[in-house]
Amino acid sequence: MKKTDIMIIGGGIAGLTAAIYTSRAGLKTIVLENNSAGGQITTSAKIENYPGFEEISGAELSSKVLSQAVRCGAVFDEFDPISEVNLNDRTVKTKNELYQCGVIIIASGASPKKLEAGGADELEGKFIHYCAACDGAFYKNKRTIVVGGGNSAAEGAIFLSDIAESVVMIVRGDALKAEKTYVSEIERRKNIEVKFHAEIAKVDHNNECIITAKDGNVIKADGIFVFIGSRASTELVSAQLETDSQGYIVCDDEMQTSMPGVFAVGDVRQKKVRQLTTAASDGTIAAFSAQRFLFNYRQNQMKKENGEIK
Amino acid sequence: MKKTDIMIIGGGIAGLTAAIYTSRAGLKTIVLENNSAGGQITTSAKIENYPGFEEISGAELSSKVLSQAVRCGAVFDEFDPISEVNLNDRTVKTKNELYQCGVIIIASGASPKKLEAGGADELEGKFIHYCAACDGAFYKNKRTIVVGGGNSAAEGAIFLSDIAESVVMIVRGDALKAEKTYVSEIERRKNIEVKFHAEIAKVDHNNECIITAKDGNVIKADGIFVFIGSRASTELVSAQLETDSQGYIVCDDEMQTSMPGVFAVGDVRQKKVRQLTTAASDGTIAAFSAQRFLFNYRQNQMKKENGEIK
Repeated sequence: MKKTDIMIIGGGIAGLTAAIYTSRAGLKTIVLENNSAGGQITTSAKIENYPGFEEISGAELSSKVLSQAVRCGAVFDEFDPISEVNLNDRTVKTKNELYQCGVIIIASGASPKKLEAGGADELEGKFIHYCAACDGAFYKNKRTIVVGGGNSAAEGAIFLSDIAESVVMIVRGDALKAEKTYVSEIERRKNIEVKFHAEIAKVDHNNECIITAKDGNVIKADGIFVFIGSRASTELVSAQLETDSQGYIVCDDEMQTSMPGVFAVGDVRQKKVRQLTTAASDGTIAAFSAQRFLFNYRQNQMKKENGEIK
Repeated sequence: MKKTDIMIIGGGIAGLTAAIYTSRAGLKTIVLENNSAGGQITTSAKIENYPGFEEISGAELSSKVLSQAVRCGAVFDEFDPISEVNLNDRTVKTKNELYQCGVIIIASGASPKKLEAGGADELEGKFIHYCAACDGAFYKNKRTIVVGGGNSAAEGAIFLSDIAESVVMIVRGDALKAEKTYVSEIERRKNIEVKFHAEIAKVDHNNECIITAKDGNVIKADGIFVFIGSRASTELVSAQLETDSQGYIVCDDEMQTSMPGVFAVGDVRQKKVRQLTTAASDGTIAAFSAQRFLFNYRQNQMKKENGEIK
């Protein structure tokens, strides 16, 4: 069994930022990632809203933050998949190793449900987006499509309508499920059109996106924003701690979950604003909380050894 | 009178990040700064813990984020000092202009109380620091001095003792004012020494810091960490909204202050972890909150005009 002060599950921006902070604080830090480093943002072709970079691809930013964490002393392993996590004992079992961890930081992210339509895969990140605040600004005076009819889709459509020339909402059902105040705003905005009973069958690209609906209608646009839900990646831990009705991990403002010594950061936790900046902030705060936890834990251990407390 | 959707007071990382988000959302955004852009970090010679940059100076990072905000459409003015802020009316008066603002975001920061000792000014940022988590890692196996005897000083000393060869605490009074658990930890750590009734009179540098105490004693070290308090920069607004006993602006987790349409971000607000990442996160969250506020405000205005509500 190997020992580590800090075990970080997930190598996106949240996890890697935590690793930068804990390893700079002199704590032994391991980051395990079952996919490749960088998390959700690696699929973004162009990021303009992360402070410090006027324009950078998600893959490039991830690789910078990863090499920074490693340079600070963190160990990163993407070739040793995790098979089991026991939060109560704070042990993590991988294909090759069993780790005893002082602290576990869960940073395994979430993924938006993808647009399932013919040809969509190849346009991901370039013309198909999942965040209006991130990518909406690329569509100034252009034509956009919003897929979905819930609150996120409505917010996205309103956001885009301030920037884009036009917004067409593709809604599967016969009504918007968003809050009333959004619905009335959408009705009032002249550059938002809503198509009900609509679903996308196929997406092509040829200087513009050519969307073929299931009923055979064709819509042309410059980009597509998809808001049909997302899911936290919590398969290995969800039964062991408190999650909300959507499956996101519940934690307090110090990133402490319902399990002592276990913290959750980034998109995997319940929160309102999911951005690179907020992920980095979560990682930072968890690093401080983890240090405090280890400090108190070790003080108590010593007191126990000295017979001061039981 | 000029109108703006968003008025941001303070051009540090928190304010500039808010500006990146609001201007990308198509909102007219003005950032006013009474000093120079960048805020507190401009005095840091070397930053290693901001994700994306293995090493960057505070001045360089600030200038990158500033030009990014301007490129996104924000207007930045550091030559038009603010003379008056009326949060209730959301007006800001400067030397040259009167602004009517849809939203005000206060991002005016805080400053640590500086070490007042002969020669200290020239060593600021290079050998004299105010944040152990930021700059402690530069002192691996080196000799450090901590000035102060409160909780921050104690936390700083413990943090540094894991990294540095030695820590000497310079405490003015005859006891540490920090929490008992810190005090006992400091007593136990062999590489922390506490000097009571001590004050620094002079600091020289000649391959190492040469600290002369008021009693004439000389201590040599590689770097000095100062924790003697800090103060929020709230002169123009503190009487108009809720602040805590330390003078920091109180706000909820959406950055909403006690005054509708007024948000506070970064070091100026009451919070636990003051880092670049948390400042950027605050700015991001406030930008979303500001958009929601403007949206609701304008919907209500329209209903009033239509006679739906009074």
